[in-house]
Amino acid sequence: MLKAVQILGWSSGLTISQRLTKTRKSSTVSFISSSLNLSSVTSSSPRRIFSFKPTRMSSSLPGSDPVANSPTFVSVQSAGDVRKIKFCQWCGGPTKHEIPDGEEKLRAICTHCGKIAYQNPKMVVGCLIEHEGKVLLCKRNIQPSHGLWTLPAGYLEVGESAAQGAMRETWEEAGATVEVISPFAQLDIPLIGQTYVIFLAKLKNLHFAPGPESLECRLFALDEIPFDSLAFSSIYVTLNLYLEDLKKGKLKFHYGTINKRPGSSPSDIRAFSLDYHLQP
Amino acid sequence: MLKAVQILGWSSGLTISQRLTKTRKSSTVSFISSSLNLSSVTSSSPRRIFSFKPTRMSSSLPGSDPVANSPTFVSVQSAGDVRKIKFCQWCGGPTKHEIPDGEEKLRAICTHCGKIAYQNPKMVVGCLIEHEGKVLLCKRNIQPSHGLWTLPAGYLEVGESAAQGAMRETWEEAGATVEVISPFAQLDIPLIGQTYVIFLAKLKNLHFAPGPESLECRLFALDEIPFDSLAFSSIYVTLNLYLEDLKKGKLKFHYGTINKRPGSSPSDIRAFSLDYHLQP
Repeated sequence: MLKAVQILGWSSGLTISQRLTKTRKSSTVSFISSSLNLSSVTSSSPRRIFSFKPTRMSSSLPGSDPVANSPTFVSVQSAGDVRKIKFCQWCGGPTKHEIPDGEEKLRAICTHCGKIAYQNPKMVVGCLIEHEGKVLLCKRNIQPSHGLWTLPAGYLEVGESAAQGAMRETWEEAGATVEVISPFAQLDIPLIGQTYVIFLAKLKNLHFAPGPESLECRLFALDEIPFDSLAFSSIYVTLNLYLEDLKKGKLKFHYGTINKRPGSSPSDIRAFSLDYHLQP
Repeated sequence: MLKAVQILGWSSGLTISQRLTKTRKSSTVSFISSSLNLSSVTSSSPRRIFSFKPTRMSSSLPGSDPVANSPTFVSVQSAGDVRKIKFCQWCGGPTKHEIPDGEEKLRAICTHCGKIAYQNPKMVVGCLIEHEGKVLLCKRNIQPSHGLWTLPAGYLEVGESAAQGAMRETWEEAGATVEVISPFAQLDIPLIGQTYVIFLAKLKNLHFAPGPESLECRLFALDEIPFDSLAFSSIYVTLNLYLEDLKKGKLKFHYGTINKRPGSSPSDIRAFSLDYHLQP
């Protein structure tokens, strides 16, 4: 359970799993991506709507044998660059960078005390706040994406639940006290080692005001959401899923993976595919 | 967004938020916990069923003014003990332990390069695998909880999505290739800084076998699940929610917080409350 390997894809690459007896050099991507359908975009509106077909994801290829069938573990450079960890944070000893016995991923290991510095994705928690047909957005006063609009959200801290963290961030960034209604979305962004967890929430009262990290907070009517000035792909996806659900008449929980287009700029928030879109 | 404070409760305590103008020394807990109902436990069966009433959580107290209304930020010792971080992992400099400017939580700050070592909760991802009315469990071959039963699950790695991580762990611990069907549960455990993300999945074929971290893997009929020999509270909750859903005829997504009973042993997996149980 505590041991893990790096797995970034199911496509061709170096097979390093100890437990695979065959190397699949040319296995194809077996996940089905949901399609990004911009057909409903009208030239007169900045709003972008896409349609998602919920998909299932599988670790095997239909019809192939069970061994070749198994996931192909591919070692690639990750968002958390282990080679930047040069010292042990507990004893100060210099680290070496090796794949530990029984593991399959490069780690920073202390040459004095032997401890391993594991790197794990971080959760970003936030609220999609509904109020009388409007949603609350914050204009960022910090980098990255200074001056662009976002949902109140930030890193989850040790010692709090995701819902508590989402309410804290809402207080810090929008000065708003909210009631969390339900989970709305989990969106993984493997490239940068982040997972967004967004809750639907409602204002307890009409008092809100920008905190130090926000320039402005505003309630936007649904047809006025500034899709051309959003801060992050995750926010773009969340708001589109929300509008899509409203159009269908029912809000649901969404799980998905945001894969940024290779080589695209971080500021190009539409350069992504939403893959492995799953719903309960 | 990148700044955050430690918030472990909404009860009395030291108010350290810079943005609160009143100190609430005796605010009461405003969250409604779902009740743990063991009334359906029969003496002849080891299975424990509890009933959850989905609840909403709020960062404010009804009827109070907006400022006093705001969340109370309480600084307490967290699962990630920041004082154990004595050196900078990037430059090797000794750390000091202070609350940085603009933040509200104690951090380890490098006295040489000034970098802050943030600590964040970790995601544990796994699969609840259904096969012909049975579920797949693994008997652990590692500590903690050696010899006890669990779902295949483990820490999410940087570079993979939660669903990919869940499939990888299933392969590593149960030698099984699965298709992920849908998200089933997110269970936060603030005390230990972990969040479980569990997916419903199905076997692609009948080949499964214990990996190095498992002693045995077995499909259990629903009335034979070894509730008295489960490894973790999170697994106990997940399997109970699953049975509860089946009884109601519909599988749903569950969000909740597992709060361990103060002073209880980690091995007492039933010493908890499931709080803030939310559903889409």
